[in-house]
Amino acid sequence: MVKKINVGMVGYKFMGKAHSNAFRQVAVFYDPPHVPVLKALCGRDEDGVKNAAARYGWESYETSWKDLVRRDDIDLVDINTPNSSHAEIAIAAAENGKHVLLEKPMAMNLAEAKDMAEAVKRAGVKHMVGFNYRSFPALAFAKQIIREGKIGRVFHFRALYLQDWIVDPEFPLVWRLDRKVAGTGAIGDLGAHIIDMALYLVGDITAVTAVTETFIEERPLPEVSGGLSAKGSSERGRVTVDDAFVALARFKNGALGTFEATRFAIGHKNWGFFEINGEKGSMRFNLERPNELEYLSADEGDEQGFKTILVTNSTHPFMAEWWPPGHVLGWEHTHIIQVYHLLESIGKKGQPEPSFFDGVKNQAVLEAIGLSAKDGMWHEVEQTVI
Amino acid sequence: MVKKINVGMVGYKFMGKAHSNAFRQVAVFYDPPHVPVLKALCGRDEDGVKNAAARYGWESYETSWKDLVRRDDIDLVDINTPNSSHAEIAIAAAENGKHVLLEKPMAMNLAEAKDMAEAVKRAGVKHMVGFNYRSFPALAFAKQIIREGKIGRVFHFRALYLQDWIVDPEFPLVWRLDRKVAGTGAIGDLGAHIIDMALYLVGDITAVTAVTETFIEERPLPEVSGGLSAKGSSERGRVTVDDAFVALARFKNGALGTFEATRFAIGHKNWGFFEINGEKGSMRFNLERPNELEYLSADEGDEQGFKTILVTNSTHPFMAEWWPPGHVLGWEHTHIIQVYHLLESIGKKGQPEPSFFDGVKNQAVLEAIGLSAKDGMWHEVEQTVI
Amino acid sequence: MVKKINVGMVGYKFMGKAHSNAFRQVAVFYDPPHVPVLKALCGRDEDGVKNAAARYGWESYETSWKDLVRRDDIDLVDINTPNSSHAEIAIAAAENGKHVLLEKPMAMNLAEAKDMAEAVKRAGVKHMVGFNYRSFPALAFAKQIIREGKIGRVFHFRALYLQDWIVDPEFPLVWRLDRKVAGTGAIGDLGAHIIDMALYLVGDITAVTAVTETFIEERPLPEVSGGLSAKGSSERGRVTVDDAFVALARFKNGALGTFEATRFAIGHKNWGFFEINGEKGSMRFNLERPNELEYLSADEGDEQGFKTILVTNSTHPFMAEWWPPGHVLGWEHTHIIQVYHLLESIGKKGQPEPSFFDGVKNQAVLEAIGLSAKDGMWHEVEQTVI
Amino acid sequence: MVKKINVGMVGYKFMGKAHSNAFRQVAVFYDPPHVPVLKALCGRDEDGVKNAAARYGWESYETSWKDLVRRDDIDLVDINTPNSSHAEIAIAAAENGKHVLLEKPMAMNLAEAKDMAEAVKRAGVKHMVGFNYRSFPALAFAKQIIREGKIGRVFHFRALYLQDWIVDPEFPLVWRLDRKVAGTGAIGDLGAHIIDMALYLVGDITAVTAVTETFIEERPLPEVSGGLSAKGSSERGRVTVDDAFVALARFKNGALGTFEATRFAIGHKNWGFFEINGEKGSMRFNLERPNELEYLSADEGDEQGFKTILVTNSTHPFMAEWWPPGHVLGWEHTHIIQVYHLLESIGKKGQPEPSFFDGVKNQAVLEAIGLSAKDGMWHEVEQTVI
Repeated sequence: MVKKINVGMVGYKFMGKAHSNAFRQVAVFYDPPHVPVLKALCGRDEDGVKNAAARYGWESYETSWKDLVRRDDIDLVDINTPNSSHAEIAIAAAENGKHVLLEKPMAMNLAEAKDMAEAVKRAGVKHMVGFNYRSFPALAFAKQIIREGKIGRVFHFRALYLQDWIVDPEFPLVWRLDRKVAGTGAIGDLGAHIIDMALYLVGDITAVTAVTETFIEERPLPEVSGGLSAKGSSERGRVTVDDAFVALARFKNGALGTFEATRFAIGHKNWGFFEINGEKGSMRFNLERPNELEYLSADEGDEQGFKTILVTNSTHPFMAEWWPPGHVLGWEHTHIIQVYHLLESIGKKGQPEPSFFDGVKNQAVLEAIGLSAKDGMWHEVEQTVI
Repeated sequence: MVKKINVGMVGYKFMGKAHSNAFRQVAVFYDPPHVPVLKALCGRDEDGVKNAAARYGWESYETSWKDLVRRDDIDLVDINTPNSSHAEIAIAAAENGKHVLLEKPMAMNLAEAKDMAEAVKRAGVKHMVGFNYRSFPALAFAKQIIREGKIGRVFHFRALYLQDWIVDPEFPLVWRLDRKVAGTGAIGDLGAHIIDMALYLVGDITAVTAVTETFIEERPLPEVSGGLSAKGSSERGRVTVDDAFVALARFKNGALGTFEATRFAIGHKNWGFFEINGEKGSMRFNLERPNELEYLSADEGDEQGFKTILVTNSTHPFMAEWWPPGHVLGWEHTHIIQVYHLLESIGKKGQPEPSFFDGVKNQAVLEAIGLSAKDGMWHEVEQTVI
Repeated sequence: MVKKINVGMVGYKFMGKAHSNAFRQVAVFYDPPHVPVLKALCGRDEDGVKNAAARYGWESYETSWKDLVRRDDIDLVDINTPNSSHAEIAIAAAENGKHVLLEKPMAMNLAEAKDMAEAVKRAGVKHMVGFNYRSFPALAFAKQIIREGKIGRVFHFRALYLQDWIVDPEFPLVWRLDRKVAGTGAIGDLGAHIIDMALYLVGDITAVTAVTETFIEERPLPEVSGGLSAKGSSERGRVTVDDAFVALARFKNGALGTFEATRFAIGHKNWGFFEINGEKGSMRFNLERPNELEYLSADEGDEQGFKTILVTNSTHPFMAEWWPPGHVLGWEHTHIIQVYHLLESIGKKGQPEPSFFDGVKNQAVLEAIGLSAKDGMWHEVEQTVI
Repeated sequence: MVKKINVGMVGYKFMGKAHSNAFRQVAVFYDPPHVPVLKALCGRDEDGVKNAAARYGWESYETSWKDLVRRDDIDLVDINTPNSSHAEIAIAAAENGKHVLLEKPMAMNLAEAKDMAEAVKRAGVKHMVGFNYRSFPALAFAKQIIREGKIGRVFHFRALYLQDWIVDPEFPLVWRLDRKVAGTGAIGDLGAHIIDMALYLVGDITAVTAVTETFIEERPLPEVSGGLSAKGSSERGRVTVDDAFVALARFKNGALGTFEATRFAIGHKNWGFFEINGEKGSMRFNLERPNELEYLSADEGDEQGFKTILVTNSTHPFMAEWWPPGHVLGWEHTHIIQVYHLLESIGKKGQPEPSFFDGVKNQAVLEAIGLSAKDGMWHEVEQTVI
C-alpha cells in the first residue's frame, strides 16, 4: 500500500511552477516511500492562485499562508516566496509540525537562518533548502568522483554565476532589486548556489573578502510586478541590492576559492560554473550544459586531457529512472530529483541534503561576503553548530 | 469550457513512457484547444501494461490493440510499437475514425507507408509521425532562420546520427536487430531522424547512393526482451539488419548531402548532428547539446564566426511557456511540444507537421538507401503525391 | 663535422614561402644529419624570383627549372609548382640524381603518378610527397595511439576538408579552378590531404563512390594571377574543376569511410577534420585546432568521454625541440618537421614517409573518385605495387 | 638601401631561444625599417653560450653582459635573464645608449622598475617589455573591437593564468621558485601577463586585494638547473615564492576585476584566459587556443551568442604577412611580431607598446598584490608618472 503525503505550497510564480511540476512528476519516474498529494496552493492574489492551482493540479488553494500552515491535512510545506518571508513561514510551518522545503537563499541574514534551523530542529521535522543543482546528475557524479578520492587534495575552486537580465538600465526595479524583500542581489540569488556547490564539493569555507557593485543605481519602478517580463513605469526608484559581487575565500582544507556572481555579464543566461583543481585531477561544470561533466585525471601521461562526460547513463546518479543514454534532462528535472530525495528522507532517520543546517552554513558565507563588501576586510565565516 | 480528447496508446516501453508523459504534461504548460485524457494504454503483457497504466496515469488498459482502436471513447491513437505493426494498427485506427500519432520510422517499406497515408487521407483524420526533434526549440529556430532567407542557396547538408550501444559483440539480438520486426537497423531507427531534418530544413531529396554494414553478424539471443538492458542467453542468432549506413544524396535544389548513421561509434550516445552550408550562412546542431544552435552569418567580415546560441529565450520557438532564459529543456520536452502541435491541429484545417505525407517522403528516401545498399547504384527517390 | 645538402626549389609563392622557411629553420631546432643550404630558387618571373630569393635567404635563383635540375651543386629538388608540371619536373630531377620533395597532389592522374614513382625508384633517390599534416604532433600522436592498438578494429572513418574561399561568384578563375593546370579542384587540393590521413591512420582503401559539384560554373578571368588575393577582370571563363566532392569508401580492413571536401562551406577556413571510431576508442582532429587531439577510450565506464589533449608536451611526437607545454605550434611548423624527416632519411636505408609510393596510393583513390563522379558507379581503387 | 640594427642578447635558454628566432625571422616576413643583425649572444657558461650562438645564428658571443652592453657594435640589447638581474642590465644598457627589449616581469619590485624607466627615459632610447601576448592577432583584434566602442562600458574583467608544472612535490626548487632570483612566483611569472592584458584592454587598475599560497613548502634542490626538465637532488630547500595568487581589483573606469594565477591547476598547461563583459558585448580569449577570439555582440536579439572567430584573415591584425586564412600561427610568432613592432618604432617618435612605462604600471599592480597578500587589506595601486 502506497503511503501518501499531503503538500501545501506557498508561492506559485517561477519557482512555484517548477516545484508544482516536481511534486506532480516525482512518483511517475521514481518510487518515493510517500507519494505526494498536491493538497493546497497558497498565494495572496486569489485569481492568480486559483488559476495556478487549476493548471498545476492542486486540489485547493489558500490566500493566507498562516491558514495553510495550520491545516491539519498538510504534512509538508514548500516555501517559494520572496526571501523576506522565508523565516516567518518556515518557523510557523515547523511549529505546526510540518516538514519544510524552502527555496534559497535560506534567509535575509544569518540570525534568521539560525532561528529557522533551531525551529525545525526543535519541531523534529524534515527540512531541506532548495539548492536544486545538487540534483543534476552531473553534479552528483562530480561529488561521487571526489568522494572516491580521485581529485585528492584540493588546491583551487573557482566559481562563476553569470547572468545578464538587468544590463538594460530601463529594466524595472523588480522585487529582486529591493533589499527589503530580497535581502541582497546577486549574493543571495546567484552566490548562494555557487557557495552551495563549494560547500558540497570542497568543504567548509573559513574566511572571505569581497566587493560588491551596483552598476545601475536607479531604475524605473515596475508597473506590475512580474519577474523577467515586468514593464517599467515612468517613476524611478533606487536599486538597493548588489548587481554583482566578487570574492576570495579560504577553505578549511587549505584550498583557495574565487567566487563571482553578476547580472551584468552580457551573453550569459545561466552560466553557473565551477572548476576544481586537485592534486590528482580537475573538474568543470556549467549550468548551461548541465548534462555534462568535464573531468581530467592526472594519471594519464601524454594522454591527459579534460574529458567531456555526458552524464546520462543509467548507472550515473539518479539516471536509471529516465531515458536511454544521450537523451538529456533539463533544468526542471533537478526539482523532481530534489523532491524525491526529500520524500525519501521522510520515515528514515536523519535529514535530507541539503538541509537547513547546510542552509545556515551557506548563509554564514553570504553574511561574511556582505560584511566584507562593506569594510574591505577579510571576515571569518561563523562556523555555527545547531 | 475546455474540450477533452481521449487518447489510447499502444506500446508502453521507452516511447510509450515518453508519450504518456507528453500527454500528461502538455496542458500544464500549453493551452491546447483539446485537453488530452489518458483513456487507455494497450500492451500484450497484462501485468506489464497494468502497472504502466497505473504509473503513467492511464484510466484503463487493453491487451489487444484491435479492441483499443474500436473503442468508442477513444479519439486519438498513439502507436509506439515495433515497426512491423505500424501499418496494421495505423490503418485500423484510421478506419475507425481515430486521429493517429505514430512513432518513426513510419513503416517497414514504402508500399506500406503509402497505404497508411492513403488510409488516413480517406478517413479524414489528423495524422502525425513522431519526428520529435523538430520540436526542439533550437531546431525550430534553425528552420526560422532558413525561412527568413538568411542561409540563401544551400550548397551542403551533412548529417550524422552516431550511437554506440551495440559495439559489444555480446550485446543480445534484441528486436531492433531483427529485420522481421524492425525492417532495418540504423537506417530506420537513426537515419529516419536525420533524413527528416534534411527534408524539413533543405527540401526534397532526389537521389541517393548508399552502403550498409553489419559489423557483428551473430549475437546471443536475448533471454528476455528489454531494450538496452536486455541480457543475452547462450544461444546465438543472426543479425539481419544494418549496423550502420553511409549515403550520399542530391537535393532538388542542387545541394549535396551526406548521411551517416551507426550504432558503432564508440563514445557517442545520441550524436544526432547536422550542418548546413549556404551562400549566406551556415548552421550546426547536435542532439547531445539540443538547447544550442550554432549559426554563422557570412555578412560579418572579420568578425565572422560560428555563434553558439542558447535557444532558451521566451521569444525563441515554443519557449515562452517554460522557464527563464538559460534554464534548459531536456529530451522529453520534444514530445510534449510535439503533442501540443498535434492537438493544436485538431479542429483546424490541414495537417500537423510532420504528417504521414512527410512520413512517406521520408520512407521513400529510406527505401532508396536500402536499394542502393544492395546494388551500389544511385537510386532515384520516388516523389509520391498522395 | 656537419654535412651539408644543397637544395633547389621550384615555385616561390604560398608553398614556396612555407618550404623556404622550413629549410631555413630546420637545423635551428632539430639536428638533421645534413644541414640544408638554400642554394637556388627557381621561378619564371625573374623579378619575382629574385626578390623572393633575397627575402627567403636563397643564394641564387634560376628562371628555368630545367637549368635548376641539371645544376651539379643541387642535391635535392623541392617542387612547389602548379600540379600540371609536377611529373615533368620530378622525373627530370630524379633522372639527374636529385632527391625530390614534391607538393601534393602528386600528379594530374594515376598514370603520371606511377611514372613518377618508377622514375624515383629507378634513380635510387629519396622522395617525399608533401602531405605535411602528418607532421602535426597531434596527428602523429593519433597514429601512435592507433599503433599501440588502443583503437582496435576500426568501424568508421569520416573526414571533411571545408573551406569557403570561392563562395563569392565574383572570385576570379585562378589556376586552381582550371583543369588544365590543377587537374581537379577540391579533389586534389583538399581531398588529397584527407585521403592521406585515411591511408596513414586506417590503411588501404579498396573502393569508392563519389559525386562532385561545380556550384558556380562561370567566373571572371583573373587580371593578375595571385592566389586568394587575385582580382577579377570583366571577361568570364568556365570553371573546369569540381568545387566540392563527397565520397563513400570501403577500407581493406572492413571499415566504412566518408569523405567530403569543398570550397563552399561558409565559415570554415581550413576545417580539415577526421574522426575514427574503433571498437576500443575514438579520435577526432581538426586543422583549425591542430595542437589538439580528441581521444576517447572505451574502457572508462561511467567516466568515458572525449578528452581534449593539448599535444605540446616534450614527450609528444616531434615536440621536444620546441617550447614548454602549452606553447602551441602553428601551421608552418609542419613543414619544418616534414623537412626534418626527409633529411633524416637521407643516408639511411629506405624512404621517408610519405614517399612517392604513398603518393601513388593517394592518387589511385583520387582517380577512382574522379571516375565514380562521372558514372555514379563504385570504382575499385587500383592497388599498385611499384 | 636597407638599414641594419645590431642586436646583443643576454640569456639563451627558453626565452633567449624564442627571441633569437624572432630576430632571425622578422625580416623574412615583415619589412622592418631596420633589419636586425644577430651580433652577439651573452651567457655565463661559455660552452653553453657558444653552442647556442652557433645554433641560433649569432655572429659572436660574450660571457659577461657588462662587456656586451659596452660594445660599440651593439644597438639594441635584449634581456632574457632571470628577474633579479633585469634592472642592472637594463639600466647599464640604457646608459650605454642601447635600445632595450626586456622580458617580463619588468623588475623585482616597483622601485627597481621606476629606476629602470627613469634610466631609459634619460637615455632617450627605445624600450619595450616583453608582454608578447599583445602580439597575438586575436588579442590585437580584441583591442581593435574595444577601440571601436563595440563593448561599451566595461562591467567585468576576469582573468586566469593556469599552469600545472609544479604539482609534483618532487619537482625541484628551480630558480623560478627562489625569491632571491625570481622576486615572486606566479605573481610575476603569470600574473604579469594577465595584468598586462587588463591594462591593455580595460585600462588602469586603482586598487587590489589578494591572497597568495605556497602549497608545497619544501622541495628537492635541483641537481642541475634546467627549467622544466630539471632533476632533483636528495637535499631539500624552502620554496620562497607564491605557488598561486588570487586577487580582486577595481579599475579606474568602474569595472570589477578578478585575477588568478597558479602553477597548481592540473590539466592546464598555458591556460592564459580572460573574459570581458561590457554593456554592448563580451569577449573571451585563451592562450591554449590563441588563434581564436570569442566575441558576443549584445545587438543580435534571439541570434545572440558567443562567436568563435578564427583570427587568421589577411585583414586581421598582423596577419597579412603570413599564410592564407585558417593556417594558424603558433606561440613563437608573437615574438616575431613583437620584435617587428620594436624595430618599427626605431627612427619614429614615441615608444613602442608595451614600453617600460607600461611595465611600471604593471609592476605597480604586482606590488600592490604582494602587499595585500601580506596584510589582507586593499592596497591602492601607485599611479606613477615618469
